[in-house]
Amino acid sequence: MSAAELHGSPVAKVLQAEIQDQVSGLVADGIMPTLAVVVATDNEATHWYVRSIARAAEKVGISCRIIDLGPQASQAHIAATLIDLSVDKQTHGIILQTPLPAGVRADELVAHIDPDKDIDGANPLSLGRLAVGLPAFAPATARAVVELLEHHGIPLDGSHVTVVGRSAVVGKPLLHLLLDRNASVTICHSRSRPLEDYTRAAGIVVAAVGRPGLVTARHVAPGSVVVDVGTNVLEDGSLVGDVDAGSVADVASALSPVPGGVGTVTTALLLLHTTQAADQLRLLQRPPAPVPASQARA
Amino acid sequence: MSAAELHGSPVAKVLQAEIQDQVSGLVADGIMPTLAVVVATDNEATHWYVRSIARAAEKVGISCRIIDLGPQASQAHIAATLIDLSVDKQTHGIILQTPLPAGVRADELVAHIDPDKDIDGANPLSLGRLAVGLPAFAPATARAVVELLEHHGIPLDGSHVTVVGRSAVVGKPLLHLLLDRNASVTICHSRSRPLEDYTRAAGIVVAAVGRPGLVTARHVAPGSVVVDVGTNVLEDGSLVGDVDAGSVADVASALSPVPGGVGTVTTALLLLHTTQAADQLRLLQRPPAPVPASQARA
Repeated sequence: MSAAELHGSPVAKVLQAEIQDQVSGLVADGIMPTLAVVVATDNEATHWYVRSIARAAEKVGISCRIIDLGPQASQAHIAATLIDLSVDKQTHGIILQTPLPAGVRADELVAHIDPDKDIDGANPLSLGRLAVGLPAFAPATARAVVELLEHHGIPLDGSHVTVVGRSAVVGKPLLHLLLDRNASVTICHSRSRPLEDYTRAAGIVVAAVGRPGLVTARHVAPGSVVVDVGTNVLEDGSLVGDVDAGSVADVASALSPVPGGVGTVTTALLLLHTTQAADQLRLLQRPPAPVPASQARA
Repeated sequence: MSAAELHGSPVAKVLQAEIQDQVSGLVADGIMPTLAVVVATDNEATHWYVRSIARAAEKVGISCRIIDLGPQASQAHIAATLIDLSVDKQTHGIILQTPLPAGVRADELVAHIDPDKDIDGANPLSLGRLAVGLPAFAPATARAVVELLEHHGIPLDGSHVTVVGRSAVVGKPLLHLLLDRNASVTICHSRSRPLEDYTRAAGIVVAAVGRPGLVTARHVAPGSVVVDVGTNVLEDGSLVGDVDAGSVADVASALSPVPGGVGTVTTALLLLHTTQAADQLRLLQRPPAPVPASQARA
């Protein structure tokens, strides 16, 4: 075991200080920053996860409403709930939690989340805006990877990052965040063969597929940095990532643990995005300043 | 010179046959497929290019309206024009042509193009929908690269494609189109050094930066396929790509020419997208079929 551990908790700590600053400012202005989490499942692990977000929110003074529509909720019911929350002036952040009932189309539902409140970057418009460089919330997990690397002093400018996984919640938004920081980025996936040709070429490897033990020592160039985004619950209830930490730690120079790595930062970012959304919505809701006559004709 | 030339004209020919089929069906239904191109520049090359689109449109029975707002057009005037065209039932495709007047924000304007008519994939929502796998028009240039490769029998599934260029009109949408086809994709750019480390690792190299002679023989692995997306007008008025064709043709197995490669396919795709948009809008505008009572409660 030689690799340094890229712990999430010091990153979360810095973010929490920032959140508490923002919360103080909002509360002083009479605004209670509020996150709404819409749940429509009886999956116990999901409820556990959502409660953990609510606890973290309360700790920093953010109100968290869990809206449990039950495992039989229809597409129309979930859509109406998201539209109501998008309009509601007391709600600043909205998460539609997966899994959803069978037959429900998540990709159509997330389009109902107001992009200004889309603090987990689920609406395709958020992803498109991120891609073209317009203001938008990135999916918290994708941003957590970048925050974790930057906090631990790993340079991204000029680096080569290989991301294993092409999902819309991690791989694709992460590409944009990394390109914005002048990294070169390779996206590979289950059909990339041999996988190690892609992962060994990079100085930084991000594993985000959802398969335990996918990335082993032979996939990793000596001295490289490995970020593990996987969160796989094994039959015995334990949580493991996509990286075979035991073997990779002998080869890599740094590795993020699971749990205690990316996930810890993700939760903090969901809350930071909520306070940022509340802050931006406050500005939007202010009556516009009078326009000087000289500028009135644009 | 050993590389095969990846000509665009046979690809355009196949697409034109498809377009004419669609046009016949639309016209038989009383619909004249119509493309609107909004121009706000006195740049002569731009006007020449727009007229070439109009000529190509007329050839296949598509009406092309050039809406010239002049080089002094304001943000508000262009926005209002795009909104009008988005609402207009006689318009099926909309292009906002660059360059635009200084100070005008193109990224805000394109959000006014109805995604159903956004046949060059300029609205961030189109890019986001493309990324998550929802129906959307890809930017024609990005799709042209894929059509050119597929037509010439170059397999993408399992391939490694390196794209030089991270723009929202080529590099980023091309990533999604390639990932959808199970390619592994590396995106690099002006800050990727040394560039040849990225380009030589791939079986297919796409150059989309806008710098003449950027990709030379030393950037390309022997036998690889090179697609040149660059369209650079030299001082003498001649058009060249980003690839130093003279040297690369000795190393690559195939190379797309400029002019006569990607650009030729791009124009055909703008027209195909217009007929597809007209076809889809026709379906949307039909009165909905009566819902059987048994299905009325969803």
